[in-house]
Amino acid sequence: MELLEKTLKQITPPAEIWREKARQHILTLTMPPWALGRLLDLAVDLAGIQQTLQPETRRKNIILMAGDHGITEEGVSPSPKEVTGQMIANFTAGGAGVCVLGRQAGAAVSIVDIGVDADLSGFGDRILHRKIRRGTANFARGPAMSRAEAVRAVETGIEIAQEMSDRTDVFGTGDMGIGNTSPSSAILSVLTGLPLTECVGMGAGLTPEMVKHKVEVIARGIEVNRPDRNDTLDVLAKVGGLEIGGIAGVILGAVSRHKAVVVDGFISTAGAMIAAKLCPASVPYMIMAHCSAEPGHRAMLEMLGKKPLLELGLRLGEGSGGALAMPILDSAAAILREMATFQSAAVSGEGNYRK
Amino acid sequence: MELLEKTLKQITPPAEIWREKARQHILTLTMPPWALGRLLDLAVDLAGIQQTLQPETRRKNIILMAGDHGITEEGVSPSPKEVTGQMIANFTAGGAGVCVLGRQAGAAVSIVDIGVDADLSGFGDRILHRKIRRGTANFARGPAMSRAEAVRAVETGIEIAQEMSDRTDVFGTGDMGIGNTSPSSAILSVLTGLPLTECVGMGAGLTPEMVKHKVEVIARGIEVNRPDRNDTLDVLAKVGGLEIGGIAGVILGAVSRHKAVVVDGFISTAGAMIAAKLCPASVPYMIMAHCSAEPGHRAMLEMLGKKPLLELGLRLGEGSGGALAMPILDSAAAILREMATFQSAAVSGEGNYRK
Repeated sequence: MELLEKTLKQITPPAEIWREKARQHILTLTMPPWALGRLLDLAVDLAGIQQTLQPETRRKNIILMAGDHGITEEGVSPSPKEVTGQMIANFTAGGAGVCVLGRQAGAAVSIVDIGVDADLSGFGDRILHRKIRRGTANFARGPAMSRAEAVRAVETGIEIAQEMSDRTDVFGTGDMGIGNTSPSSAILSVLTGLPLTECVGMGAGLTPEMVKHKVEVIARGIEVNRPDRNDTLDVLAKVGGLEIGGIAGVILGAVSRHKAVVVDGFISTAGAMIAAKLCPASVPYMIMAHCSAEPGHRAMLEMLGKKPLLELGLRLGEGSGGALAMPILDSAAAILREMATFQSAAVSGEGNYRK
Repeated sequence: MELLEKTLKQITPPAEIWREKARQHILTLTMPPWALGRLLDLAVDLAGIQQTLQPETRRKNIILMAGDHGITEEGVSPSPKEVTGQMIANFTAGGAGVCVLGRQAGAAVSIVDIGVDADLSGFGDRILHRKIRRGTANFARGPAMSRAEAVRAVETGIEIAQEMSDRTDVFGTGDMGIGNTSPSSAILSVLTGLPLTECVGMGAGLTPEMVKHKVEVIARGIEVNRPDRNDTLDVLAKVGGLEIGGIAGVILGAVSRHKAVVVDGFISTAGAMIAAKLCPASVPYMIMAHCSAEPGHRAMLEMLGKKPLLELGLRLGEGSGGALAMPILDSAAAILREMATFQSAAVSGEGNYRK
């Protein structure tokens, strides 16, 4: 708990003075006022986060947290739990979606076993071995994990991000875990009070009957556990997941070192909600990559007051949407660093150039 | 007219057989069915356009067509016309928005003087000198150009794209021309029958009074010229622009060589509408980069039946939005080329992997 408390105390909002300097600089660039729209808003965000007019986004690192979920016992996912472990092999071999998209974005992908229900010791140093337990317990019948384990999950994410922060400009979050839309939906419903029917979707292709069953299972889990929505760690422990806690920790650890974090889809944003509840000042450091096809994701984004960069109907997770959005950050930073001013380019009509 | 007619005859729709092969291949990749949503639709498009399961997007070229507009005499833009020429210097020096974003995307930017009202011979081989005339005439008082000039504008674009097609995987369109939202709005209104008030926006920051004036000027232009909406070249000649015709030509030339074309914003999409009317089979080769802040742009996209990749409130033109979208094409192609299959990665549950 010490690391978490210490980290929360270190977090301060981005520097308004640098945001204002960026806004003023942008108005001198050779284009009609604010003609690159949200790309310029993002440039302002990066300037505030990094406290510079020359933000750097070159060194990118997607931290992919993998964990299993006891709730799969209830038949909430048609995929066997073994897929989580098999996908770890796919990640380390570079063949998974996030690997392909990460290479395109120039982003490293760091795989963390924070709670996979399989012995992954054979992967050696190709993954980070930070297993807290072999998957959560089935939260339809009791708490997913203890409060101490939930704290350890968050602190694991903090440790990893802080350790990597000296060699990382931009972090990304990613997840792997069969069944992890169920704890994400539960967290959304508990933290916002939204009815579960609005928090559970067809996901990656459930039938309406399967969705109904999933809602019932999660509802039972919330009733059995009675998580206290004003006690974020209680919610995470009772109906959450190890990788969701880890993602919250990655965000808090990165933010404590003034790094931007590109948040991927539904599972990552469940982690972002936990981080936001633990520390509202972390929210401005979060860059939401996309709005996913999972219907509850929009409600999460609204709760956080954030607009996503992309809306392409993604629902893969892994950090894949974050990888896809990262080139937009590169571009936003490059506009600040490289674009000519009216003065330097001798273009007429500063403040008056319109098409 | 010969080159245009010959080119139109060469254009055939993308190969359905390759689209279907791509769909089948994607279903074998290690993710839940279609979990990367529109990125996968785009991969299918690229496979059909290039007739391969290994589409290539590395060599990118944004063709930026620059021209001036006599309609600026009517005070439809607060920027002086000289800005067009000054911006050419900014493009060649690499300081303009599209240059910065093109570098990020790994795209070359080719500047074409198709009708700038200034002597640009001093730029030597840093730009393509294809000036048809020094700006259009003021279309509020008569035709913007002759029908022969309109044909030459389109054929200039065709020639440039066809000449570059052997060393280009993906084309982008771009525009520069103070006043060019006016002909774009006129084309939209004439080709769709939409009232002008829905085709003219606040653009890059006009006041409501300036918008009202702009609508009146364009309405007068349409009344004076009476363009025939069933004769696309008549519309282009009477209320269009040289760079808009050039953009239509770039699209048709690229499509005739089975190349994808990333279409930028409002002005580029006016060119795309011209291309689509001349040759409906060219539409599936168009990849719409973004939905711009210019309100008429959405109507254009709807008329073309296309969904844009980005929606970031851009309204710069130059091809900047196309550059920003190009990394998404790279990613779509890479998914087809590089992502592991269930079989190759030994992951269970093909057709059954869901979160």
